[in-house]
Amino acid sequence: MTKPYDQHCPIAMTLDVIGERWTMLIIRDLYFGRARFNDLLASSPGMSTKILSERLKTLEAHGLVERQVYSAHPLRAEYHLTDRGMSLEPVLNAIGMWGGQNLVDPKDAPALFAKIEAMRPQNRSLASDTPGA
Amino acid sequence: MTKPYDQHCPIAMTLDVIGERWTMLIIRDLYFGRARFNDLLASSPGMSTKILSERLKTLEAHGLVERQVYSAHPLRAEYHLTDRGMSLEPVLNAIGMWGGQNLVDPKDAPALFAKIEAMRPQNRSLASDTPGA
Repeated sequence: MTKPYDQHCPIAMTLDVIGERWTMLIIRDLYFGRARFNDLLASSPGMSTKILSERLKTLEAHGLVERQVYSAHPLRAEYHLTDRGMSLEPVLNAIGMWGGQNLVDPKDAPALFAKIEAMRPQNRSLASDTPGA
Repeated sequence: MTKPYDQHCPIAMTLDVIGERWTMLIIRDLYFGRARFNDLLASSPGMSTKILSERLKTLEAHGLVERQVYSAHPLRAEYHLTDRGMSLEPVLNAIGMWGGQNLVDPKDAPALFAKIEAMRPQNRSLASDTPGA
């Protein structure tokens, strides 16, 4: 694990939990409904199985993710955000909105954000905040 | 520089700009008024001069930070967030609020957040959102 910043600052403390490389992308994918290890792995080319496994364990240890075994033979598990994990939604939204407003090609933004809104968990639409909507 | 995620996703695109280790803490310090290289360095024990220099150059290249020389002999510069850099305020706020609500000891939160609010740039108070206020 990366050395924590260990600063008495709420921004640094949050980043000590979710700021490691790949972690926010894993949280993003769990938020949007990916639940299986191999689906999470496939979503982020360049992320190794070892890193994904470590990141999920860290997120579990912080109470943000829970692992549910749904088949014993063969062993199969799914990963879901806990309520505490779902409370990161404003962080995901702020990061995504900034990218949508500053980095996405404006001509691509409406289609991209429509796709993202369609993938959101139920009752969590942000349609009124969507750039280009 | 860390390899970019290179995903067509506004969250991943944002993290390719501000997601490297130390970068958000540098943006935090610039937002709260630290402007000199040595002050930024002192704020984050464990961050090397080389890393700080690289991170500032990356932020300048993305138009988030500007470097202003205020003395030629000896050469002295200050760093400030541009308007584009200041537009990251909702990201800083979301990350800080989550930490304040989930990681800071509740008995420390009111004093810590009062101190943070007092350091904010003028006219940017979030007093009504402050946990424990």
